[in-house]
Amino acid sequence: MNADDIAGFFARRQDLDPESYIELDFAFECAGDPREAAAHLCSEQSTAQWRRVGVDEDFRPRFAARVLEIDAAPRKEFSIPVDGAAAGTVHAVRVTLAHPHGNFGPRLPNLLSAVCGEGVFFVPGIPLIRLLDIRFPASFLAAFQGPRFGIAGLRERLNAFGRPIFFGVIKPNIGLPPEPFAEIGYQAMAGGLDIAKDDEMLADAPWCPLAARAALLGAAARRAAEETGEPKIYLANITDEVDRLIPLHDLAVANGAGALLVNAMPVGLSAVRMLRGHATVPLIAHFPFVASFARLPWYGVHSRVLTRLQRLAGFDAVIMPGFGPRMMTPEAEVLDCIRACLEPMGSILPSLPVPGGSDSAATLERVYGKVGGVDFGFVPGRGVFGHPGGPAAGAKSLRQAWDAIAAGVPVARRAAAHPELAAALAAFGGRG
Amino acid sequence: MNADDIAGFFARRQDLDPESYIELDFAFECAGDPREAAAHLCSEQSTAQWRRVGVDEDFRPRFAARVLEIDAAPRKEFSIPVDGAAAGTVHAVRVTLAHPHGNFGPRLPNLLSAVCGEGVFFVPGIPLIRLLDIRFPASFLAAFQGPRFGIAGLRERLNAFGRPIFFGVIKPNIGLPPEPFAEIGYQAMAGGLDIAKDDEMLADAPWCPLAARAALLGAAARRAAEETGEPKIYLANITDEVDRLIPLHDLAVANGAGALLVNAMPVGLSAVRMLRGHATVPLIAHFPFVASFARLPWYGVHSRVLTRLQRLAGFDAVIMPGFGPRMMTPEAEVLDCIRACLEPMGSILPSLPVPGGSDSAATLERVYGKVGGVDFGFVPGRGVFGHPGGPAAGAKSLRQAWDAIAAGVPVARRAAAHPELAAALAAFGGRG
Repeated sequence: MNADDIAGFFARRQDLDPESYIELDFAFECAGDPREAAAHLCSEQSTAQWRRVGVDEDFRPRFAARVLEIDAAPRKEFSIPVDGAAAGTVHAVRVTLAHPHGNFGPRLPNLLSAVCGEGVFFVPGIPLIRLLDIRFPASFLAAFQGPRFGIAGLRERLNAFGRPIFFGVIKPNIGLPPEPFAEIGYQAMAGGLDIAKDDEMLADAPWCPLAARAALLGAAARRAAEETGEPKIYLANITDEVDRLIPLHDLAVANGAGALLVNAMPVGLSAVRMLRGHATVPLIAHFPFVASFARLPWYGVHSRVLTRLQRLAGFDAVIMPGFGPRMMTPEAEVLDCIRACLEPMGSILPSLPVPGGSDSAATLERVYGKVGGVDFGFVPGRGVFGHPGGPAAGAKSLRQAWDAIAAGVPVARRAAAHPELAAALAAFGGRG
Repeated sequence: MNADDIAGFFARRQDLDPESYIELDFAFECAGDPREAAAHLCSEQSTAQWRRVGVDEDFRPRFAARVLEIDAAPRKEFSIPVDGAAAGTVHAVRVTLAHPHGNFGPRLPNLLSAVCGEGVFFVPGIPLIRLLDIRFPASFLAAFQGPRFGIAGLRERLNAFGRPIFFGVIKPNIGLPPEPFAEIGYQAMAGGLDIAKDDEMLADAPWCPLAARAALLGAAARRAAEETGEPKIYLANITDEVDRLIPLHDLAVANGAGALLVNAMPVGLSAVRMLRGHATVPLIAHFPFVASFARLPWYGVHSRVLTRLQRLAGFDAVIMPGFGPRMMTPEAEVLDCIRACLEPMGSILPSLPVPGGSDSAATLERVYGKVGGVDFGFVPGRGVFGHPGGPAAGAKSLRQAWDAIAAGVPVARRAAAHPELAAALAAFGGRG
């Protein structure tokens, strides 16, 4: 590119119609001129060849992505080894781009192709790049339904206000037939869970068919609700081939499921959007596959971007890697994802963030402190179903821990009078 | 885990029914005992809690993933910096696991959840891991349709045998309305392309609607076929929301598209499988998003795995990052992906590998030499549509280069008598 070519991919924000562009934040490391690398980044993801041979035309004014902001600092070398990088001084660069969404429209696959595609990861001179964040104008957001229930709707269904929502992953996660699976789910709901959920690995298996499981867990939820006076939800995992999602929605809901779990990336965000158009119950996201592109700080896609897209696709709650070394996610990134669920997003309702990973009554106070509010879900597995006193005691220990926190009493002190909590702290207190 | 726990996740291959397991190859780096890390890897992706509290049971014999092979070598430190890794000697480890596919069944989303999910990327002690390969038993493969046409079917449709298939990406990729877009597509097909294709970023855009585009390009393909005596195909990009794929298939095919392009990961492999059940024309995969998890050698998912899954989902051809520094993919990895398209895979037909990236008549001989055979697609963009003589000359230059190669004549020597080829070598010969 010559200097004029490069300049054609830069713009001032005030010269662009904000409703016509999404904004993208990238961090990248390049060899050579950072401005040229940024121009290539724009070109490759929009008008890679902006005129026909022999025709005097230029598609950039309408169709090009543009650099709005750039900040480059030289580095001695790339942060991690890269193959075949071009020669030239290495720079660490932050850019904000404006990308004209009219190039692809309000469609999730086409959006992903534009912002996570060949035009991002195959840019001359940029071997390391990470999409950090994405922002949408209101007119783009208006084309999406977003969550049907959101946090307020979930709370109403559960009659649970002013506190976290207590999920529990029924364990053993794989292998139990429906009857004993429902029995331990019942015990945990009777003990205090709001929502007993399938593991993300348990779907419509021949040895634990969804129809039978939903019927038994639905009955268990009703029984636990009658006994406790609190509404209960069985959250059924309907992750399956795309053409089975709507039939399995209907099957699970008809049998007694009160919400549905979908593994967002494996199924595909667009399939979730399709399901959202049909769904009559809350949809909950689980996170398989996300870490494969979101874990490393120098490369890939920040998990906050995926959180935003899951909210856009219509999830009422988003289960995400939570706090502590077990989930290998920096605390700041967990908080970024939580904010991406909660902060204003045009017409799109907030989703409930559910940061998870080896939680129990012993970790609730820490998680609550880090989240800094009650709008979150808490999702132990073994912390409930591996509790030494069994699932009911495990669930009780969560509620006892919360009662202590809500009363401003140290959880450890409250344990003296509550054996389930004491047992949880003894069994799980050494973790994370 | 104690020694007995760890041993429960190891097995000898001859003690397992091969038809009941998929095999997975992983490379990982761990801190601490490699055998314990490998056992955790199995546990986390299958029976994370293998018994109920207070019940004498063990779900591992039927449901656990097992280590079949392990090879560990100590290292001074991790290959790249990792946060919060556990203490202990670092090892670089290769393992082959047997994972019981009855846990999830022949469903792509559930397969992805098992082999690229929480149980792979959140394993205690394993901060760096890459899924290297996957192998399926015949009984699992038999549940999938795979490609409908495959390489042989594509060749029959094009009456093109004993040579590569010549694709071209119509450029400018974004911005042209249907009429001029079809005109340059026609020129390139008349000049010698087998298949004129949409860019992966061009879908059903208001400024270039798919229906009008397919009608004009379909007519252009028929006209070019009549004039050249060779069948021609317009390859239309129908990447869109999942619930639009089948309607857009019908629309594009009815209007004149002879094959359909789908951005596999953005749409989702399961949606592709759904489309395959309906499709009457060849399906071609493009690779946006794949690099976000496949690029780095220490982490993520090897692109060969995705190639296999795209073939399984039903793609007749797989466009993939090709040779040369421009596409930032090691040559061995490109060859791995090509083999994954071609090698035996139970009842599943081969897919045509289409390694691409800044190709032209100047790179054909090198690509052919590396592939080592004629069963590949060649997919220039600017090498045809940015040729100084225009698209017809660009396409001619490809065929001239192939005629030289087929005749055993050096391409550069053949250029003396063929001005289109000479112009291509002059314009593009310095690249890659």
